[in-house]
Amino acid sequence: MIRPRTAPGTLELLPTEQIAFQRMLDVIRSGYERFGFLPIETPAYELTDVLLTKTGGETERQVYFVQSTGSLEKSAAQEEPGLPELALRFDLTVPLARYVAEHEHQLTFPFRRYQMQRVYRGERPQKGRYREFYQCDIDIIGKDGLSPRHDAECPAVIHTIFTDLDIGPFTIQLNNRKLMRGFFEDLGITDGEHQVSVLREVDKLDKRGADAVRETLVGEALGLTEQAADAVLALVAVRSTSHADALGHLDRVLAESTGSEVLATGVAELREVLTVLRDLGVPESDYALNLSIARGLDYYTGTVYETTLDDHPEIGSVCSGGRYDDLAGQYTKSKLPGVGLSIGLTRLFWQLREVGLVGTAESTVQVLVPQLDEAYLPQCLALATDLRQGGINTEVVLDGGKLGKQLRYADRAGIRFVAIVGEQEVAADTVTIKDLRRQDQFTVARDEVVPAVRVELAQPLDVPHED
Amino acid sequence: MIRPRTAPGTLELLPTEQIAFQRMLDVIRSGYERFGFLPIETPAYELTDVLLTKTGGETERQVYFVQSTGSLEKSAAQEEPGLPELALRFDLTVPLARYVAEHEHQLTFPFRRYQMQRVYRGERPQKGRYREFYQCDIDIIGKDGLSPRHDAECPAVIHTIFTDLDIGPFTIQLNNRKLMRGFFEDLGITDGEHQVSVLREVDKLDKRGADAVRETLVGEALGLTEQAADAVLALVAVRSTSHADALGHLDRVLAESTGSEVLATGVAELREVLTVLRDLGVPESDYALNLSIARGLDYYTGTVYETTLDDHPEIGSVCSGGRYDDLAGQYTKSKLPGVGLSIGLTRLFWQLREVGLVGTAESTVQVLVPQLDEAYLPQCLALATDLRQGGINTEVVLDGGKLGKQLRYADRAGIRFVAIVGEQEVAADTVTIKDLRRQDQFTVARDEVVPAVRVELAQPLDVPHED
Repeated sequence: MIRPRTAPGTLELLPTEQIAFQRMLDVIRSGYERFGFLPIETPAYELTDVLLTKTGGETERQVYFVQSTGSLEKSAAQEEPGLPELALRFDLTVPLARYVAEHEHQLTFPFRRYQMQRVYRGERPQKGRYREFYQCDIDIIGKDGLSPRHDAECPAVIHTIFTDLDIGPFTIQLNNRKLMRGFFEDLGITDGEHQVSVLREVDKLDKRGADAVRETLVGEALGLTEQAADAVLALVAVRSTSHADALGHLDRVLAESTGSEVLATGVAELREVLTVLRDLGVPESDYALNLSIARGLDYYTGTVYETTLDDHPEIGSVCSGGRYDDLAGQYTKSKLPGVGLSIGLTRLFWQLREVGLVGTAESTVQVLVPQLDEAYLPQCLALATDLRQGGINTEVVLDGGKLGKQLRYADRAGIRFVAIVGEQEVAADTVTIKDLRRQDQFTVARDEVVPAVRVELAQPLDVPHED
Repeated sequence: MIRPRTAPGTLELLPTEQIAFQRMLDVIRSGYERFGFLPIETPAYELTDVLLTKTGGETERQVYFVQSTGSLEKSAAQEEPGLPELALRFDLTVPLARYVAEHEHQLTFPFRRYQMQRVYRGERPQKGRYREFYQCDIDIIGKDGLSPRHDAECPAVIHTIFTDLDIGPFTIQLNNRKLMRGFFEDLGITDGEHQVSVLREVDKLDKRGADAVRETLVGEALGLTEQAADAVLALVAVRSTSHADALGHLDRVLAESTGSEVLATGVAELREVLTVLRDLGVPESDYALNLSIARGLDYYTGTVYETTLDDHPEIGSVCSGGRYDDLAGQYTKSKLPGVGLSIGLTRLFWQLREVGLVGTAESTVQVLVPQLDEAYLPQCLALATDLRQGGINTEVVLDGGKLGKQLRYADRAGIRFVAIVGEQEVAADTVTIKDLRRQDQFTVARDEVVPAVRVELAQPLDVPHED
């Protein structure tokens, strides 16, 4: 006998939790489609030489390789086996780059795609960190340019989705890498690598605190002057409190610049993003300038985003992304700039569950038809068929048992309605409907059951399901 | 530069095809939920010792193992490396068994679950055979018994789904392993292994033809008498043409039996399945007795199913399954009988595309807002927001270009409506709506756009989208 258990670093859910998770996936998908993004899916694994073209040692160490029994034997027989031929994707961006380059001539640009699939990283398992997790990505890929207006569309989608997810107030925070880069050039920090190192250090502000970061900035490795370190720390402290305030901050940053063109471009891009966000009707309370955002990844070149839950800043960013210049340089000569955002749903779900923001959902089953008496099974089956044909998710108890036990099952499972067909009901050609949530019941004529249940289902229910 | 390409044996779709595929997934999910099945998902990989407990060499050769870089190095350093610790699932049944055994005390039985995920097999790639493919499974797992009524519920779901998929007439074909086993015992073939060998041979009827199968049956290896071979071939030729005809066949099989109890049980089970199928309102034209169905797998013990498309018998079974006695004997002492069905969607999609039964679908984007003049971009954005808030999937062209080109894009992409906001429209506070499918257009007041488009979308459209 083998002890049944999942592999470490995976999140497996019970059905009631899976329903809650699936509802979040559905909200995200629906939001992405509402904004005109098209679905794609890619295989879970890629050819290793295709997957690992750009990435350095850090990512490579986290890659999961895939081998069939045959290729295991083959590589065992080799003196110096190379890497296995296949590897699981570690994000959805490299597969997107491969997809766009491979199908370039069959796609229309700007290409807006969404993709919601699992990715794999051989990370050390820890609370809330998974080796297998869902990413829900959108990207807009241009060919020969892509205006910054698109950089506003991504956070607008995210605004719709986080509003629909109904997990409390949130703020989409914006910055721009060009603004940052120009600002550094103004300070005389012109070397790209140096800027990246400073940005990486600044990225640790939340974790290390301003004093520790300041010390590192003026330390030997980064070598900033006291004045430059102060300027950097003042810049990254900027948070806007309204649309007008954001524009005011941008004006000030521009005015204080000693003329960097790249800073001016960054400011202009942010202004355009803010304008389009407002024109798209995103409330100004839900987005803000945050000049501390750097994002860990080096390939962002313009707008960068993070999203935080106002009541749970400890969770950190729940949706991040940005603008990049060249999606697929390793696969094609075409210059493909893009902008995108990613929701790490597995981690987000775990976090929301930890802080009590998602519970177990109401069941997907809307009506349970219990079995009181085997003699009426045909009537129960016919009723279930009518309900199902009316679009109502219905479960029939086929093997009977005590009614009390069947009702308790429905209640525990989060099934709201029970449609009872017993001796009385069959005699009177009626059905008794119990609403377990409202703790209410009523009797309806048999041929009015479907519309009656539909009316009940359409009414908003204020009573939450208690688990 | 690396040539962008997918790994062999995977099916990757363009967005228009992906939409068609996603619609099929949605129909299947909705059907499963309509019948009260609950969703679960399991990790793509399992611990190797958990996954490979039951399976023989054949399956094992097809297993994909998963290794992180670290474990690759470790196993390379070992003199005799064992199997890697992780392996990709090759079906959804073993993960289900592990899931049910692991979470046994948190589940309610009968446990009805659906699961729609990709599985992995290291098969030799060939036309329409994939190494990564979707399975869409339902199973009902009992504890301490599960009546044959449940064996009727699975094909009833499948009936709903294949009706909703709208891919032409189909027949769900039924047999019962006990009937077959009892029949063999009547013929003196009492050894289980021997029966399985005969069943396997009979399973090849479609491929090899009756004569070749007959020859093998009376050959040295299987050793049936001429009379027994004739009886077997007569039995497996049984196909019912109606509900009454099916019951008549069962009466005859029972009458001709020399008293096998197990045959009588099989006949009784099939009768109950047929009765419940009828009571559930499944039309008798859509199911039939087919006593040739054996199913390749040895673990089915009662009802077995296949589903064929009446107009495309060459495709073979598109949905198969059956009843088993013991789902998770390798993980738990609890006896967990079950019944289930599986749709191999990736292969089915490929086959339907080959015979022209799925094309590219209408886009998920319902309205395109083109950009005629940059001056009206704010109006275009506001219109898009209204449409989106009205639940209408809307794409805005953010970077402009010629209207003709934008219209051609919409048409090619399968977007039905174009909502135009130009100088005239802004002046008159209207929007011009083009219906590209009906090749029609109308102008509507700005504040009536959303209801107007909704009315159009709600109307059935007879004009197919031409690709």
